[in-house]
Amino acid sequence: MKAEIITIGDELLIGQVVDTNSAWIAEQLNAYGIQVQQITSIPDDRERIIAALSEATGRAELVLLTGGLGPTKDDITKQALCDFFDTQLVFNQEAYDNVERIFASRGLPVTELNRMQAYIPEGCKVLNNMNGTAPGMWFDQNGCITVSLPGVPFEMKSLVAEICLPLLAGMSEFTIMHRTIWTEGVGESFLAAKIAEWESNLPSCLSLAYLPQPGIVRLRLTARGKDKDSLKSALSQAEAELMPLIADSFFGFDEETLPMIIGKLLTDNGLTLSTAESCTGGSIAQMITSIPGSSEYFKGSVIAYSNEIKEKLLGVSLVTLVNYGAVSEETVLEMAIGGKTKLGTDFSVAVSGIAGPAGGTPEKPVGTTWIAVATPQRTVAKKLLFGEHRGRNIQRATIAALNFLRKELLLYLEKH
Amino acid sequence: MKAEIITIGDELLIGQVVDTNSAWIAEQLNAYGIQVQQITSIPDDRERIIAALSEATGRAELVLLTGGLGPTKDDITKQALCDFFDTQLVFNQEAYDNVERIFASRGLPVTELNRMQAYIPEGCKVLNNMNGTAPGMWFDQNGCITVSLPGVPFEMKSLVAEICLPLLAGMSEFTIMHRTIWTEGVGESFLAAKIAEWESNLPSCLSLAYLPQPGIVRLRLTARGKDKDSLKSALSQAEAELMPLIADSFFGFDEETLPMIIGKLLTDNGLTLSTAESCTGGSIAQMITSIPGSSEYFKGSVIAYSNEIKEKLLGVSLVTLVNYGAVSEETVLEMAIGGKTKLGTDFSVAVSGIAGPAGGTPEKPVGTTWIAVATPQRTVAKKLLFGEHRGRNIQRATIAALNFLRKELLLYLEKH
Repeated sequence: MKAEIITIGDELLIGQVVDTNSAWIAEQLNAYGIQVQQITSIPDDRERIIAALSEATGRAELVLLTGGLGPTKDDITKQALCDFFDTQLVFNQEAYDNVERIFASRGLPVTELNRMQAYIPEGCKVLNNMNGTAPGMWFDQNGCITVSLPGVPFEMKSLVAEICLPLLAGMSEFTIMHRTIWTEGVGESFLAAKIAEWESNLPSCLSLAYLPQPGIVRLRLTARGKDKDSLKSALSQAEAELMPLIADSFFGFDEETLPMIIGKLLTDNGLTLSTAESCTGGSIAQMITSIPGSSEYFKGSVIAYSNEIKEKLLGVSLVTLVNYGAVSEETVLEMAIGGKTKLGTDFSVAVSGIAGPAGGTPEKPVGTTWIAVATPQRTVAKKLLFGEHRGRNIQRATIAALNFLRKELLLYLEKH
Repeated sequence: MKAEIITIGDELLIGQVVDTNSAWIAEQLNAYGIQVQQITSIPDDRERIIAALSEATGRAELVLLTGGLGPTKDDITKQALCDFFDTQLVFNQEAYDNVERIFASRGLPVTELNRMQAYIPEGCKVLNNMNGTAPGMWFDQNGCITVSLPGVPFEMKSLVAEICLPLLAGMSEFTIMHRTIWTEGVGESFLAAKIAEWESNLPSCLSLAYLPQPGIVRLRLTARGKDKDSLKSALSQAEAELMPLIADSFFGFDEETLPMIIGKLLTDNGLTLSTAESCTGGSIAQMITSIPGSSEYFKGSVIAYSNEIKEKLLGVSLVTLVNYGAVSEETVLEMAIGGKTKLGTDFSVAVSGIAGPAGGTPEKPVGTTWIAVATPQRTVAKKLLFGEHRGRNIQRATIAALNFLRKELLLYLEKH
């Protein structure tokens, strides 16, 4: 079953609102084996709505529309649907009862504008909207199911999850499954070269996508076919063959992020963490503390942007700073040890680098970054060379430091 | 001039990635008087790319594509463009030099896959990508300008802003101007009520949009018309009438963010800053250090997630912590003073709150947040009550603390 999504609203075309509805709907449909082949965003314009409907219903067996169902003048989707399906608006008691229920729950009388929301194109199935006054509408005509939904994400989501998906279940004979594999520290093209042979030998039911973000490449394996069990085993086999090739850079599956993985390792083993950050400016701590319950294992940080604070709060020696500079192996090692001892934690991760745009020298260009991890057993550092862009350098240093920490944590736990 | 945007990538159609490129591009084009009439997202599929190109170039005078230009097998946009424009890939020295430059800056050799990125459809203009290995491509054929850009937002944005927009400027006879006014601490509907009369008296060439984000509402005034001068004066007059109504919550214009404004105030007056953060977990420091040159005024932070660190590194007294708790006026004041004295700065901003989801009590529910600012003259605190969502609480506390700091900075500077 092929589907398309049409999102309607001027705000999408001037970039005032990012269309998050489409991605959410696509994800839901995908999980039901329904493949979305196009997403189209158009303004609140009768001609454009009718043209988009005509194209989409000609290509797909399912078309979901969102937006333009509100009570105000700029909401014209319902009238455009009438014109497209050559029908007219008729009063619908069920839809009106819902409008009345919602207004009553707020202690308000139904306004004339909202009474109009109970007028529905004749011949469609009304989908009752428990969370708003605009009902969904389900048309089954000309070999295509067309569903019109409100644009408010909260209302749209509940209509899709509670009414549309159960109605659609079983309409598709295909199954789609995904497995996402996270890697760190290897660029997309180097990763691709490493796994080229494996990729070219993938069975035809599997496809691979590379999803890069600063410091990270996610590999997404997608299985498509009719038999769930054989897809599952094709996925597992491909994954098993892939893992040895990417052992160095792999860190997690599916929804697992680095701060989540680290948080779980620390919690499960009763260990504590601190950070000692210079160029990342609190970015590592911020990612760690984005996880609910992180106060269990995260004690705090010293962000030592200036050398005085590296000395005073982290105990980095003045001699080290003078002889080797703030961005050096010696300094970052002392920062990690300082974080661990001054903040009293089992582990500490430290970063010192030149984020840019200023501060680079021929020996230490912008992007030069030292990261270190102190564990109960040892302190290790490594140097990385990023690019010229401040924001990306900070992001990449943050990700690299978190993964370095994760690896040291695993090494330590292996031995204990 | 009518434009369309086509975003390419399987990840968009399965909902794994939300298409934020389109909204950003639409906003930029809009500011140049170019109206986007459709946004289309399609998979990495040759037939679908060619069909979408054919439809869009038939309807619009400008078509921007993003995605599918990477070095890996799933990236097929370039070949599809060749097929659509009936041309072929040829080696481009300029594009190759750029690939080489990028690899050299990371100390890496150019891989064969990346060498392929220097092959470009014959007859197009190459747009040099300073931030990545995939160049942009500009086709001017059949009465339509077609521009193909990489999908990585960072690379796409710099190509659009630095190369495409200057080339497109002057191609449209309409002018669109925006003025954005930033406010903090007042919810959208309360702000709307405050300025309702002003809003309803706006001249017809102006429109107003509310752009809320956690802790902040941006008001965007848009002027549309042919005469630049009269639009400019309509915008200035509306702004002058608005300002007294929002004096309490206003903090900046257009691209001025809080960390930028604070950075400028500190730099211009030779003052220094530190932060002492608990629930914000480094988020304030991270925003401050996102600004290039922040090492001029930002010395560092103590992120004191645990009480021991509040005591040990910030000098918060145990008596205060025991008697009043970590989330209290007394503690946050001592944290700000500790930040200022221990880190040796002129100003320090401190936050202590319950971000959730756990940790709330009937007296101090989740969302309870104390913020404090220590200046060379005084230390002040205030209490805020946010909601139940951890991520939003951290964001709102960060914004509120930064604006509190900005206000104290201005008060201090007024007297000096």
